[in-house]
Amino acid sequence: MDVRIKTPLPHGGKLVDRVVRDRERAKKMAKGAAVFDIKPTLYNGMPVRNVYREIMSICYGFFSPVEGSMTHAEVERVLKERRLLSNWIFPYPLVFDISREDYQKLGVTSGDRVLLRLKGQPFAILDVEEVYEIDPPELARRTFGTPEDNPEVVKKNFDEKHPGYVIYKSLNPIVLAGKYTIINEPKFRPPFDRFWFPPAKCREEFAKRGWTTVIAHQTRNVPHVGHEALLKNAAFTGDIAPCDGILVNCIIGAKRIGDYPDEAIVEAHEMVNKAGYVSPKRHMVTFTLWDMRYGNPLESLLHGIIRQNMGCTHHMFGRDHAAVGDYYDAYATQILWSKGIPSFGFPAPPNMVEYGLQIRPQNMAEFWYCPKCGETAYSANCEHAERQRFSGSFIRSLLAEGVFPPPVIMRPEVYKVVVKWWKHFNYPFNNKKYLIEREQRLEVDLEPLDI
Amino acid sequence: MDVRIKTPLPHGGKLVDRVVRDRERAKKMAKGAAVFDIKPTLYNGMPVRNVYREIMSICYGFFSPVEGSMTHAEVERVLKERRLLSNWIFPYPLVFDISREDYQKLGVTSGDRVLLRLKGQPFAILDVEEVYEIDPPELARRTFGTPEDNPEVVKKNFDEKHPGYVIYKSLNPIVLAGKYTIINEPKFRPPFDRFWFPPAKCREEFAKRGWTTVIAHQTRNVPHVGHEALLKNAAFTGDIAPCDGILVNCIIGAKRIGDYPDEAIVEAHEMVNKAGYVSPKRHMVTFTLWDMRYGNPLESLLHGIIRQNMGCTHHMFGRDHAAVGDYYDAYATQILWSKGIPSFGFPAPPNMVEYGLQIRPQNMAEFWYCPKCGETAYSANCEHAERQRFSGSFIRSLLAEGVFPPPVIMRPEVYKVVVKWWKHFNYPFNNKKYLIEREQRLEVDLEPLDI
Repeated sequence: MDVRIKTPLPHGGKLVDRVVRDRERAKKMAKGAAVFDIKPTLYNGMPVRNVYREIMSICYGFFSPVEGSMTHAEVERVLKERRLLSNWIFPYPLVFDISREDYQKLGVTSGDRVLLRLKGQPFAILDVEEVYEIDPPELARRTFGTPEDNPEVVKKNFDEKHPGYVIYKSLNPIVLAGKYTIINEPKFRPPFDRFWFPPAKCREEFAKRGWTTVIAHQTRNVPHVGHEALLKNAAFTGDIAPCDGILVNCIIGAKRIGDYPDEAIVEAHEMVNKAGYVSPKRHMVTFTLWDMRYGNPLESLLHGIIRQNMGCTHHMFGRDHAAVGDYYDAYATQILWSKGIPSFGFPAPPNMVEYGLQIRPQNMAEFWYCPKCGETAYSANCEHAERQRFSGSFIRSLLAEGVFPPPVIMRPEVYKVVVKWWKHFNYPFNNKKYLIEREQRLEVDLEPLDI
Repeated sequence: MDVRIKTPLPHGGKLVDRVVRDRERAKKMAKGAAVFDIKPTLYNGMPVRNVYREIMSICYGFFSPVEGSMTHAEVERVLKERRLLSNWIFPYPLVFDISREDYQKLGVTSGDRVLLRLKGQPFAILDVEEVYEIDPPELARRTFGTPEDNPEVVKKNFDEKHPGYVIYKSLNPIVLAGKYTIINEPKFRPPFDRFWFPPAKCREEFAKRGWTTVIAHQTRNVPHVGHEALLKNAAFTGDIAPCDGILVNCIIGAKRIGDYPDEAIVEAHEMVNKAGYVSPKRHMVTFTLWDMRYGNPLESLLHGIIRQNMGCTHHMFGRDHAAVGDYYDAYATQILWSKGIPSFGFPAPPNMVEYGLQIRPQNMAEFWYCPKCGETAYSANCEHAERQRFSGSFIRSLLAEGVFPPPVIMRPEVYKVVVKWWKHFNYPFNNKKYLIEREQRLEVDLEPLDI
């Protein structure tokens, strides 16, 4: 006999909530702590990561059950088995790294408390449990795997052309391990504020909307019609009917030159429902703060964790999921979720191992526009030679030339959102100036908190 | 931890196979049996049913675990609880009925064997276990339910405008109960021959094609673009990816004036894959012999049984499933498969009760053509006012006027199939002449078998 699909438990059993909302208590907690100002990680002068995003995602429960910067033993277990010390699966080392100089200045050790400031204001505290050294290039190599160690899916050695590799390679050599606690909640700047649904709030929203089956859609892009087709057709899976809801969860954080600005990404996805292509009654746009590691199967694991924590029952995975270049097999994520990747610690898919996930994969093939079908057609259905593939680079080249893309490629309302932010930033895509300024501006402001 | 969906067991545990393929053995079995010529059941001079189709569907295993004409006790249990005496769920009484005169002439009783002839040739034997009388109008009433007894879904009393009610009401008063055995396999006439996949063969074909997840699509129609959208989008459900296969299973049998001829129905569905709209690699057209009872939720139960026996893992159910008129709630089938219909014996859905089905429902809402979306849009997604509903009657009225339907309504290749059979039968739809002649011609021919 069959059993109905229910809202999954949070990964690890309960949602992490490490946010102190009582200002007096917050002040007390910060008193006397060593002070450290959070700065972005730079590579060749360009910001590639800001640890504040990890602190936010951890403390608001997106990465449950992770509660802080990992200890040496936990990092080792993650690298060897992709599991936390509590056995729950997790793909990436997450650490609070500082330079030797900063460490000298800070003068803290196990048992001490550090007050982390962001944009000059108190933001969070880190209770130091352990201080240890790392070898960043070695950590970077082990994080993403190698063709020798992970022959199932790794096609070539990672290098500085890979932004995730760069993030790990650029880490400072000293790690302060310990739990984070946010003591001064950052306020999201528009347009991000209306898309901020941390897991607990997101689950409440699902309940309010009467959604049980919800399929997550990962994005770091302005949606073209092919993306829309993926998200709305993948949603025909569900339980005894198509999914109640579609959760678009944008990854907001350090990006690359040529990507769309994050502001355009969230609003363009929202436009899909505002313009009525996917009813706002079943489509919801949110974001998670994270500097993408582009780890394809490993990133998909993090995506599964984030969206399960948000309450999703299903996750759409396509070709080249969260991938850059051809380091991984284009279908590495689908391999992980359909049979597992033993060399990464998964003899079975992540939802079929102990201490694994509950979210279910929906592995999708490709959509293209087919004039013979007269519609966006699914690759497993359409047999016509007239197929026209959606190409993000082609669309970007149209935009760069100021060409209004045809509506079978991009919805006109979505294009107008791109133009809105183009006017705002003077360029439709991220340039160096945007990338540097956005790391100063960030997505948040912090109110003063006198310690 | 999740478990993968497997090919379901046949309903009742094993496929019924009551076909004797050894001609010498067949002859011996028929020797000395009383002979009876199968004739169609008539109502107002029009054929409404031919019991040969039930015998075919039973002996080839489509209706497993049913093995013959039901005993009185079994009919009672089916009517009261929609279960066979073996506890397995089943929606309809299935009986071999004859007139008092024929019964007198036949002179058989429990323990006797009857040789059933079709088109003048030996076809099957019926081993009589019991002879009993029925009250056809009462049986008809109890078969479909009443607003008093089945308030969840029955909206008004059944009457002679309902073709299923007419079938039961037109039954002869004497039932010969007992198992059927086909002793002379009928040969399907073209075009039906290439669509004949009895359950065992169908399961072999699935295995050969490497299909595990297969979604069944019920049809008694030439497919318009809305039907195509339903079948191909419902197929995005599956297990960890969209269904491997789509099984279109046409119901072939007595039809009504104004329906499409069965020949056009099977070939038009086949054209959907031949013309490349849904690849023949994942789309397969078959049929089941059955004079539709149009019992909406009850018919959906039979459809579930048939397609589970054929090896399908999923079944698409839409609005007004196998319905005529407004006797049942338009969503009665989806109510049955999402929460059950207690008054029909289902306090839970048919795949969530003991001795129930394993096939999973995919309850779908509506598709319409939306010029704003620029495609066939799903009702839960599209919020535009421009929507154009697919109307079978509208399409039929276009065809009747000789108007080539627009390609967003009917694929041109599908229309050509309609025209092909239109030329053949001199009319695009079933008229009285077609309906009478087709019951003489049937879908099969039988080779001589000298007893």
